[in-house]
Amino acid sequence: MHINTLREAPAEAEIPSHVWLLRSGMIRRLASGVYGFMPLGYRSVRKIEEIVRQEMDAKGAQEIHMSAIQPAELWKESGRWFVMGPEMWRLKDRREREFCLGPTHEEIFTDIVKNEVSSYRQLPMNLYQIQTKYRDEARPRFGLMRAREFVMKDAYSFDRDREGLDRSYEAMFDAYMRVFARCGLRFRAVEADSGTMGGNASHEFQALAENGESEMVCCEACGMAVTTERARVADAPAETEAALPAETVYTPGTKTIEDVAAYLGLTRDRTMKALLFAVSGEDGALSEYVIAFLRGDRELNMTKLINCLGVPEHAVAFADEASVEAETGCVCGFTGPMGLRGCRVVVDSELPGQRNLCAGANKADHHIKNVNYGRDYTAEHITDLKLIRDGDPCPACGAPLKAARGVEVGQIYKLGTKYSESMGAYYKDENMQDRAIVMGSYGIGVTRTLAAVVEQNHDDDGILWPVSVAPYHVIVTIVKHGDAAQTALAERIYAALLDAGAEALLDDRDERAGVKFKDADLFGIPVRITVGKKAADGIVEYRLRREKEAVEKSSDDAVADALRLIEAERFGPAER
Amino acid sequence: MHINTLREAPAEAEIPSHVWLLRSGMIRRLASGVYGFMPLGYRSVRKIEEIVRQEMDAKGAQEIHMSAIQPAELWKESGRWFVMGPEMWRLKDRREREFCLGPTHEEIFTDIVKNEVSSYRQLPMNLYQIQTKYRDEARPRFGLMRAREFVMKDAYSFDRDREGLDRSYEAMFDAYMRVFARCGLRFRAVEADSGTMGGNASHEFQALAENGESEMVCCEACGMAVTTERARVADAPAETEAALPAETVYTPGTKTIEDVAAYLGLTRDRTMKALLFAVSGEDGALSEYVIAFLRGDRELNMTKLINCLGVPEHAVAFADEASVEAETGCVCGFTGPMGLRGCRVVVDSELPGQRNLCAGANKADHHIKNVNYGRDYTAEHITDLKLIRDGDPCPACGAPLKAARGVEVGQIYKLGTKYSESMGAYYKDENMQDRAIVMGSYGIGVTRTLAAVVEQNHDDDGILWPVSVAPYHVIVTIVKHGDAAQTALAERIYAALLDAGAEALLDDRDERAGVKFKDADLFGIPVRITVGKKAADGIVEYRLRREKEAVEKSSDDAVADALRLIEAERFGPAER
Repeated sequence: MHINTLREAPAEAEIPSHVWLLRSGMIRRLASGVYGFMPLGYRSVRKIEEIVRQEMDAKGAQEIHMSAIQPAELWKESGRWFVMGPEMWRLKDRREREFCLGPTHEEIFTDIVKNEVSSYRQLPMNLYQIQTKYRDEARPRFGLMRAREFVMKDAYSFDRDREGLDRSYEAMFDAYMRVFARCGLRFRAVEADSGTMGGNASHEFQALAENGESEMVCCEACGMAVTTERARVADAPAETEAALPAETVYTPGTKTIEDVAAYLGLTRDRTMKALLFAVSGEDGALSEYVIAFLRGDRELNMTKLINCLGVPEHAVAFADEASVEAETGCVCGFTGPMGLRGCRVVVDSELPGQRNLCAGANKADHHIKNVNYGRDYTAEHITDLKLIRDGDPCPACGAPLKAARGVEVGQIYKLGTKYSESMGAYYKDENMQDRAIVMGSYGIGVTRTLAAVVEQNHDDDGILWPVSVAPYHVIVTIVKHGDAAQTALAERIYAALLDAGAEALLDDRDERAGVKFKDADLFGIPVRITVGKKAADGIVEYRLRREKEAVEKSSDDAVADALRLIEAERFGPAER
Repeated sequence: MHINTLREAPAEAEIPSHVWLLRSGMIRRLASGVYGFMPLGYRSVRKIEEIVRQEMDAKGAQEIHMSAIQPAELWKESGRWFVMGPEMWRLKDRREREFCLGPTHEEIFTDIVKNEVSSYRQLPMNLYQIQTKYRDEARPRFGLMRAREFVMKDAYSFDRDREGLDRSYEAMFDAYMRVFARCGLRFRAVEADSGTMGGNASHEFQALAENGESEMVCCEACGMAVTTERARVADAPAETEAALPAETVYTPGTKTIEDVAAYLGLTRDRTMKALLFAVSGEDGALSEYVIAFLRGDRELNMTKLINCLGVPEHAVAFADEASVEAETGCVCGFTGPMGLRGCRVVVDSELPGQRNLCAGANKADHHIKNVNYGRDYTAEHITDLKLIRDGDPCPACGAPLKAARGVEVGQIYKLGTKYSESMGAYYKDENMQDRAIVMGSYGIGVTRTLAAVVEQNHDDDGILWPVSVAPYHVIVTIVKHGDAAQTALAERIYAALLDAGAEALLDDRDERAGVKFKDADLFGIPVRITVGKKAADGIVEYRLRREKEAVEKSSDDAVADALRLIEAERFGPAER
């Protein structure tokens, strides 16, 4: 077996899963955000794939396999050729036809059912694949967590109606709960935004991890969990005090909320903040300016703004100061909602209920006090733009929320008829009427799940694989290379394990015992059976990777105990 | 199960494997040369993958998994960034860095061992992967036969020396013989050219097929088999007659060998033919002209010429007439070896031994008689350029050769140190001396193998899968949908088969029996058990797909016979 462990992780590795997967030699970096899997690593990938396959099959989903290369035309039909932005790898063939490397497969699968499904009798149906996906991430990082080439399981359900979709979605929700539990993850199913997928209901499956890139809030009182992007924030109660006359005041050099609040002796929640954006069109040229307003103590939730605008994320950028001032009449640092022109104004839903706030005057070094919605300004859009915070009240029950971080290992979407309508995927119902097929879409990041397992299961010496996804179950280590008694016993144990269907490694390398122990810890094989001095008496050391201490046992007991553990945890960890 | 069969194959499908894979709904075209696998098709793909995996593992090869996206730098190191030509899909990331979609992985695997292997103690080693490959074929066709995205098993062996490589190559040769036999193919291992791979020994594994794109010749006397590209052609015996004086003759309008031979009353083998080529450099601009000469009755083997020139295939094109005439002094249609300038002249190895041939005079409407090598002309290169023909003498034993066609399902190469030297992959030997790692490379076209199996195993009604790669082993067909006795017995049979570990399909669709029979034939499931009118008596029809007649049996016997067949052929067809 080819093994190449590293004493030190490369500097690029910032989080434990990345460090340990590299140090144990399970993965190898080929380019920024592009990794290969070495023998031990690929065994674990295949185990996760097999868990996913079993749980998908158990729900009646059918495995297929589509190409990574996808013709641009399908993405133009669905409207996503533009929406996907620079994250989509695009390429041309030798005849200059446009293709992409699929970041996901809604278009391809919709096209399949469009061509192959005509009658209600063929529905419902769920098709899935375990396949390589591509995203040209702006900042690939954390190894497998945010990679540019990765393995994903993607499934698509096709139903006659909304009720069918609800059932399909439930089945997938259930399958996902089982998959991640079997992989040994501590995770949460979290209400999520559906982003560029479209549709109106979505859950993310978040493996809890300090270093996770996803932010969520959880309510310990009612159990609600939601991504920060998606979390509805309750407006402050409407105020009832009388509107005072608006008053322009000189506030020299107060470009930030902190400055102006301090200068005027106000708390931040008595002010309004403005955020200025430029939105570009499909040709990349400027299409409009957008100015968003929130109460001065709030932060903007960018996802909510983008959803409100109905444009792709990559089309929105901070506005260039000089241009936005020239076009809209705002003055950066002193932007307020009164007297703007030539821009879309979006106002947080809380502002209309607030009285006598202090806002920018659109004039350098000036603010206006006692600004009130309706009397002083109005807006095209009034919507919740607020970013939720640790401690905010739960929108369901009012108890204080707790912020948490996670690694998104899966996401499921109720797509509805977005794709079937745009791409023309219809079926004939019992009355021979054409109806749009109702779709759902369901993803699991297979290689990211591998990383999440390591992120949650490691110590200072290496990985602690759960039996269900470990590359091997048992490592049999010979302490002294070449010792006849040790070699004979180790080989007997190894053979007994293989005969019983366990996956075992025999470490018979000509290395010091310390090196072999260190490697075994690094690889995280759940059970180590060490054959040393007492080999002649049939006595070995038995150690579970997740426990500190080794125990002396007869070799027969060691084999029996290992097999018992494997049997118990092969299909997922026991309840803990 | 989603099933979508077609009554007619699309017009694009020209050969049986393409027709039947499309008609049975096993594959689906997504773009020119890009196919997806539907449920039944993907099951067969995975079976072939598993056969490959087992045979590779049995030889001690280790499975890994590298990315499809590969950085251009590695290909520039090996020198193949240019060599691969337009067949390589190239793309840039958002930072304008160049990548390709791997058509093969020599560079990546060499880079791995360069980084991970330092000592002779780590060798030998064989790493393989089953992975998606990309080639932007000029003319994708025949479905999976010549696709632009396809699944390949590629393996790379790393040895200390040539003897080690010989052993590794032998092991792979043996594994390949087993793989293709287990897939039920009739095939030949054929000596082959190593093309852009480099190296000095290669075999192709050719599945015999009338419609195959590969041409080979086989000697029934001594067993030698070689690709047409590679086949050495014996020179005609050297002639001993005296050289006659050269004589320019007027041969109006005789632009072809046929014309001039007829005009002068000669047989074609008394003439010389010229072929004019332009070779371009890395920048795509013209780098030189090449003129090749053969005896008039011979055909040029392009591969031999390219190997002699040492340039990539895509860099060689027929020369533009006006330009080549201006630059070299030739006259198209009347080109001869005398008086040429500014070009490379390549002469077939047979010509120096021939006496008094008739060649072009490099003057319109004129030829020269009695041209002799040495006296009248010389050449930079003298090499075998001849294309072998059916009936030519075997270069090994002299018996007449037989031409045959095949589908190349695998190829193995002794690469030697081409990649390790150009990319710097060295190891330290026992004396701490640096030595280049000696490499081999071994490919199996997994999806092409699937097509080859169908190409060899079909009749007028559909596919005849060998048990080892059939998507399911048995199909249990209920003749009358809704009939209680038939349904009960069919379900009992189905359950008994599954319990015994057979892979079975139950066709309980509400369709006419004829439709179900037709589909079962189309899918090519090896055993069909039909439950019809005699269900109440426990009698069924048992039919092997490869036999015409169905036989009545008790359901127990049918199950037992099916299981016996599966057991016998699960790991490959019985000897035939």
